Amino acid sequence: MTESYPIRPEAAAAPTSGIVDTVNYGRTREGLIPLWVGEGDLATPAFISEAATRSLAAGETFYTYQRGIPELRAAIARRQGAILGKEIDPERIFVTSGGMPAVQMALRLVAGAGDEVVIPTPAWPNFVGALTVSGATPVEVALDPSPEGFSLDLARLEAALTPRTRAIVINSPANPTGWTATREELAAILEIARARGLWIVSDEIYTRFVWDERVMVGERAASFHDVMRPDDRVLFVQTLSKNYAMTGWRVGWLEAPAELGQTIENLVQYSTSGTPVFVQRAAIAALDHGEGFVQHQIARARRGRAIVAEALATLNAVRFAPPPGAFYAFFGIPGADSQVLARRIVDEANVGLAPGSAFGAGGADGLRLCFARKADDLEEAMRRLAPVLRDLPI
Amino acid sequence: MTESYPIRPEAAAAPTSGIVDTVNYGRTREGLIPLWVGEGDLATPAFISEAATRSLAAGETFYTYQRGIPELRAAIARRQGAILGKEIDPERIFVTSGGMPAVQMALRLVAGAGDEVVIPTPAWPNFVGALTVSGATPVEVALDPSPEGFSLDLARLEAALTPRTRAIVINSPANPTGWTATREELAAILEIARARGLWIVSDEIYTRFVWDERVMVGERAASFHDVMRPDDRVLFVQTLSKNYAMTGWRVGWLEAPAELGQTIENLVQYSTSGTPVFVQRAAIAALDHGEGFVQHQIARARRGRAIVAEALATLNAVRFAPPPGAFYAFFGIPGADSQVLARRIVDEANVGLAPGSAFGAGGADGLRLCFARKADDLEEAMRRLAPVLRDLPI
Repeated sequence: MTESYPIRPEAAAAPTSGIVDTVNYGRTREGLIPLWVGEGDLATPAFISEAATRSLAAGETFYTYQRGIPELRAAIARRQGAILGKEIDPERIFVTSGGMPAVQMALRLVAGAGDEVVIPTPAWPNFVGALTVSGATPVEVALDPSPEGFSLDLARLEAALTPRTRAIVINSPANPTGWTATREELAAILEIARARGLWIVSDEIYTRFVWDERVMVGERAASFHDVMRPDDRVLFVQTLSKNYAMTGWRVGWLEAPAELGQTIENLVQYSTSGTPVFVQRAAIAALDHGEGFVQHQIARARRGRAIVAEALATLNAVRFAPPPGAFYAFFGIPGADSQVLARRIVDEANVGLAPGSAFGAGGADGLRLCFARKADDLEEAMRRLAPVLRDLPI
Repeated sequence: MTESYPIRPEAAAAPTSGIVDTVNYGRTREGLIPLWVGEGDLATPAFISEAATRSLAAGETFYTYQRGIPELRAAIARRQGAILGKEIDPERIFVTSGGMPAVQMALRLVAGAGDEVVIPTPAWPNFVGALTVSGATPVEVALDPSPEGFSLDLARLEAALTPRTRAIVINSPANPTGWTATREELAAILEIARARGLWIVSDEIYTRFVWDERVMVGERAASFHDVMRPDDRVLFVQTLSKNYAMTGWRVGWLEAPAELGQTIENLVQYSTSGTPVFVQRAAIAALDHGEGFVQHQIARARRGRAIVAEALATLNAVRFAPPPGAFYAFFGIPGADSQVLARRIVDEANVGLAPGSAFGAGGADGLRLCFARKADDLEEAMRRLAPVLRDLPI
């Protein structure tokens, strides 16, 4: 390939998603229960889709503001303000075509060739993927698994910093591990970043999905917003995907210092050139009228977590602690090759799980299961999984 | 800004669009006739929007294939095949969230820090913008204006190539100049690229909007597809925006060697993570049933071109030749500062034009007018423009 079609090393180095690999392996199996990707089983509620339909019927099909339509920026600021208990300036909000473009833009702002970015792992692989494409070097700091769950050793985090470090990526509550920082841990991480002039790229998209009071502030997970000053170097990447069952819509936002507005507008112009207005109208409907649906999703995930935790507790071969946040069970099978195991589980249990190796250091023997799904499916999946997992290691 | 918020030099260097600057200046003027951006005045036809509405109602709101849904890839290949008179393999087609992400991806594949990419200018500013963000160096080769229109001096193009050159960007028919290569010119450019192992990034999105038989093959503009071998290093960036009045939808595609498929899939994953399925359904409707609408748009643009050309011919201060392709009049006012002039035209004529300086070398004294619009608007715009332009230079 590279002989006939010479391409840039950063592009060639973009890693193939280990999740997609398994999905492609099992995509067409009849009756498979798909717990491999980070989305639930509910389609977008009709009142959200209908807002898009009305916008289309009204002919809102033209180019639009690169920062997002003012009404959506205001709706995001209003909703985030209510969740965080804090006033958010709409000028800090930049609409993006999904959470991923927000991540790409945040990382492109702060790091490139020659720079290092520290990230606790196992982590959502797209952070490392986007860093690789941008030419920056991801530096992984493994979370510590224990019978009580995952924890982040702050001394180890600090030891990973070098003069080339530009940013720390913090995803709390975390995909895939469920690790969730306490308010005090976030304050400590912020202090570390401040002392060295580093950026924090914060992914708090699972903040409403939180199950342990020790990591909560009110009814959500602790946030950097709880501990930061207005001028701290924190970029928040956000999405409507998870709360509102809008994974396929591709709409999210970047929250950043308003002073970076023109630069961010330019980066939007030269990447996606904006998000469809009719999608933005749907996003407004979700934010303004979606709280009942979010509560429904949280209740389902809570029940899903209980079903999965109870079933995994009976399996001696499995290393697992119920996660304090997010909607994944990330369990270990000591000694397993997770890529091989995920395919075997497709074949023998007809259940789709994501191999832990897709999530970087510390994930090689793990499997990720998404429990944002109806109870019947999860109960059936755990019935099918038990005999396969009980026979391990093989 | 950079003191409080240190960001990467490539991000900081992303140029602010000179078009957006003028649009922001005049956006709220009542009664302004907006001819400044590259879109017409027609909303998307209802049969296209309704395909999206049906998809939404059916719950197609989940994550999807990173290369695009197979049905859309097939529809694109089918339609392009019919237009080009040539079989197109769907495996060469990669759906993107608009033409711009296709451009970004194409350039990211072929060029980065330390590389040069040659581009004839005046040109659509987003090529240079995307190159700047990627760290590559755009090298502009000015088109020659003459009473007969713009032409590209191939010797000058060749002289701009250095050992660092990785690609040549060719946009034919061109935005903003209307310059359109003959089949023979495309063959000569391809030979130059072949001899040095360079990529060509070809933007042929205006191929249906062509007005001069000398640059036509059948009813469209000449294409690299007319002269290339299957294994040539040509990347085509494409969009549904112009043909189908879908600028706001953000859907297009990259056509590339199928061998690059996995890399392109990875680049999609780490940038947009795919295009909404309901948008892809609309795109299929457009491609399969939109030919009548495209013909209607072509007829309108042909009439618009005649109206604008006739009016400009009466203005001695204006350097202009009717363009052989695309739907823009790009006319020069020798000695003018186009940014100042575009604002003055907003103030005095209440017409929105794009300043030529936004399009790079050779554009500083020019103005771009989009004539993909209803005749009444264009006639009124030319009536308003005449007194302002007649008094120039000032």
